Amino acid sequence: MRAPFAEVLSAAVARRESQVVLGLDPDPAVLWPQAAEAAAGSGSPAERAGRAVLEQCRLLIEATAEACVAIKPQLACFERLGAPGWSALAAVVELAHAAGLLVIADGKRGDFPLTAQAYAQALAGSTATVAGEVAGLGADAFTANPLLGRDALEPLVASGAGVFVLVRTSNPGAADLQDLLLADGTPLWERLARLVNELGGSGSTQPLSDVGAVLGATRPEYLQRARELMPRAIFLLPGVGAQGGRAEDLGAAFAPGRAAGLVTASRSIANAHEQAGGDPAAAAAAEAKRLREVAWALGA
Amino acid sequence: MRAPFAEVLSAAVARRESQVVLGLDPDPAVLWPQAAEAAAGSGSPAERAGRAVLEQCRLLIEATAEACVAIKPQLACFERLGAPGWSALAAVVELAHAAGLLVIADGKRGDFPLTAQAYAQALAGSTATVAGEVAGLGADAFTANPLLGRDALEPLVASGAGVFVLVRTSNPGAADLQDLLLADGTPLWERLARLVNELGGSGSTQPLSDVGAVLGATRPEYLQRARELMPRAIFLLPGVGAQGGRAEDLGAAFAPGRAAGLVTASRSIANAHEQAGGDPAAAAAAEAKRLREVAWALGA
Repeated sequence: MRAPFAEVLSAAVARRESQVVLGLDPDPAVLWPQAAEAAAGSGSPAERAGRAVLEQCRLLIEATAEACVAIKPQLACFERLGAPGWSALAAVVELAHAAGLLVIADGKRGDFPLTAQAYAQALAGSTATVAGEVAGLGADAFTANPLLGRDALEPLVASGAGVFVLVRTSNPGAADLQDLLLADGTPLWERLARLVNELGGSGSTQPLSDVGAVLGATRPEYLQRARELMPRAIFLLPGVGAQGGRAEDLGAAFAPGRAAGLVTASRSIANAHEQAGGDPAAAAAAEAKRLREVAWALGA
Repeated sequence: MRAPFAEVLSAAVARRESQVVLGLDPDPAVLWPQAAEAAAGSGSPAERAGRAVLEQCRLLIEATAEACVAIKPQLACFERLGAPGWSALAAVVELAHAAGLLVIADGKRGDFPLTAQAYAQALAGSTATVAGEVAGLGADAFTANPLLGRDALEPLVASGAGVFVLVRTSNPGAADLQDLLLADGTPLWERLARLVNELGGSGSTQPLSDVGAVLGATRPEYLQRARELMPRAIFLLPGVGAQGGRAEDLGAAFAPGRAAGLVTASRSIANAHEQAGGDPAAAAAAEAKRLREVAWALGA
């Protein structure tokens, strides 16, 4: 029986004094020099690229772990390297755990109930097989897409891992559907928010729920309303940095406590040296530290 | 430059005289005896289970290929075995192509535009890396989730592969969101249908579009309306068999031509021997042949 994600996260945020989530979405064509060197030697292109991507993630974790509370690997960026990519992903999860970081697997999965169960096994559970039990990725939490409705989310929630459900995303096209007005005059995303609140046990007395929400940090005007609708949800806030969001604008997210808002950044950390100059690892460390201080001050 | 999916599919449907898609969602704890035997020998549990799952898929393809036009592997069922599962998936794609079948990768992906691009690379493209180009899975088409809006679907469509967008799914919970009435009095799923039609080039003179729709076969009353809204879309129709849908009810799907509706079945084929008795492969072959005849008669 795993400890509830919200409790584990709350303790980790307090211990590490950080709400920063290191996004890992490595581009295997554009890596730090030391990571690119790991592609040298034997193996197929996919195997060599897998080594390089793993090395890039290792360097990023090494440089920034002290300032972060979790990593958020983007599954697509590993899947595009096939089986060697999935092996690299599994190794990244182990590295993160060894560094005391939680792991939020970002795959935005959503499928029929039986298949949702298989995704829960893949990401945060295990699978019974004719060859014995096979462990999944070992993530502490993962992102999920709610379009298939409540019965498709329930197997994910039942996994016991944290589940961050897409509610209002930060891409320009998000408005196409998530902002559509329903017959009752409210936008679709508010209905998604209500579903998240229900799934998280709206009557619970625990301060935070294991069912959280993905909310784009590029639109802070949504956060106040989102907090009203989901008083106990942990908000995962991508879009800080490279996508234009600013951590300073996210105060409403942290109202229930510091662990109630997680600030994720990936390219703004990995590519910090392009603006700051100097060593990539040192620039990444400085940017993660800066984000941590900004977010921590907001949640006081 | 790949040939347009709709053309490739139309030719394949005509050549093979089939609109049946073999769904592959292997449960590694419940396999045909011959497949389970492949788990014997050396390796980790995941590697042994991966061998068994690959053998199950190989046997299913061997038994049913003649009656089918494509396979639809359920990515979750392979991902839960980690890297060995992904290797098995890649091998299944090769087996299917060698048998003359198209491949529809069923992962229901949907993500921010840059990440959607990475999924397109993973499933149906290739990725530039420091170690050279890495080929993706080689699927001919894949399923996608539209919740993030048009800009998140465009990189998938731009891949040139076929894209089957979720419009109205067959699970009971689908009604929670997909049937919500919008302010204009229409349900959300009809808005999704309009988006599919636009993305597929609503002004095109080609008979069928490369952008298709996933529509649950358990609710045939939707199909007539869906066809009005998406006159050129290829409908992927899961839910036949184990989920309760009947191929006989799907006539509206085939109005624009036989390749305009694909009937997918997985458990009802893989588990046909549980009802019919006898050899699993023979029962699977008979059920695939039965489905093919039913569907073919509808599209005449």
